[in-house]
Amino acid sequence: MAGYTADRQEHLRRLRRIEGQIRGLQRMVEEDKYCIDILTQVSAADHALRSFALSLLEQHMAHCVADAAAKGGAEADAKIKEASDAIARLVRS
Amino acid sequence: MAGYTADRQEHLRRLRRIEGQIRGLQRMVEEDKYCIDILTQVSAADHALRSFALSLLEQHMAHCVADAAAKGGAEADAKIKEASDAIARLVRS
Amino acid sequence: MAGYTADRQEHLRRLRRIEGQIRGLQRMVEEDKYCIDILTQVSAADHALRSFALSLLEQHMAHCVADAAAKGGAEADAKIKEASDAIARLVRS
Amino acid sequence: MAGYTADRQEHLRRLRRIEGQIRGLQRMVEEDKYCIDILTQVSAADHALRSFALSLLEQHMAHCVADAAAKGGAEADAKIKEASDAIARLVRS
Repeated sequence: MAGYTADRQEHLRRLRRIEGQIRGLQRMVEEDKYCIDILTQVSAADHALRSFALSLLEQHMAHCVADAAAKGGAEADAKIKEASDAIARLVRS
Repeated sequence: MAGYTADRQEHLRRLRRIEGQIRGLQRMVEEDKYCIDILTQVSAADHALRSFALSLLEQHMAHCVADAAAKGGAEADAKIKEASDAIARLVRS
Repeated sequence: MAGYTADRQEHLRRLRRIEGQIRGLQRMVEEDKYCIDILTQVSAADHALRSFALSLLEQHMAHCVADAAAKGGAEADAKIKEASDAIARLVRS
Repeated sequence: MAGYTADRQEHLRRLRRIEGQIRGLQRMVEEDKYCIDILTQVSAADHALRSFALSLLEQHMAHCVADAAAKGGAEADAKIKEASDAIARLVRS
């Protein structure tokens, strides 16, 4: 079981809404909608995607990272490093 | 015709690939995949979405903004302001 | 004269405030302040730095890019491309 | 002692370099340098500031968060929540 399993339905609901936003963007492009209106929708989808990531990351830290830290040792260090690298990728994406 | 119309097929291809990435994320959540692997995929989708936005923005500036600037006046000022606001939303999303 | 010259004093005032924030961060590190409080200050300085960039970019577009677009030709295309590249660097930094 | 104390000199060195970059930006504005060159420097300073934050955050997680997680209970939950909020502020700044 992953750290986010308890909230799986909520995560899926978010991702399906983001998928709907991306399909909405395709319709806008097909219908030659105004660029700025498309960019506004992109920013909304991007914001939703990052919110999903931040929520997943918080649960990962509260479960996987906290459990590893409680046990200590090399596994704890590895989990911290792994989470830090994921945060850096998110900040830089 | 919007400023990006000439590249419509390329934009649609990008957006369909991003839609595929979002559906891939749903499968990962359904299959209890490891949080960090999901976050890596989120960063990839986020990067692709921002690249789409930057490409659209460049075409908007090269067509709509440049045309308005060539005519000058209040319309030019409004287009510049509108593009700047879209850039700010993108930087902050 | 650059596109931002009319607002030079306002830009300098912003940059001096950001410099003060960076020096404040040095004091916090020297005094072993709590990491989270330092990170909050980093986010504030980062936000201020990006706001400065967005303000400068808007003035650049309203002056340099608009003037080049009004003249048209290769110079206009080059200015649009250059601004788009600067926006991409900002979005990705 | 904060989690980053062992690397305090390295952190101070980074922050002083960023301070130098901000002062360099002031000189560029005073000398009417080209907007795009200033924006390139802003992106470099912004990147350095975010790298400092990511480094501090990793040490915070490896020390303060890991220690709290090892003890468990409400304190552990609070530290995880606090770190998650700091990450969200950084991603959104």
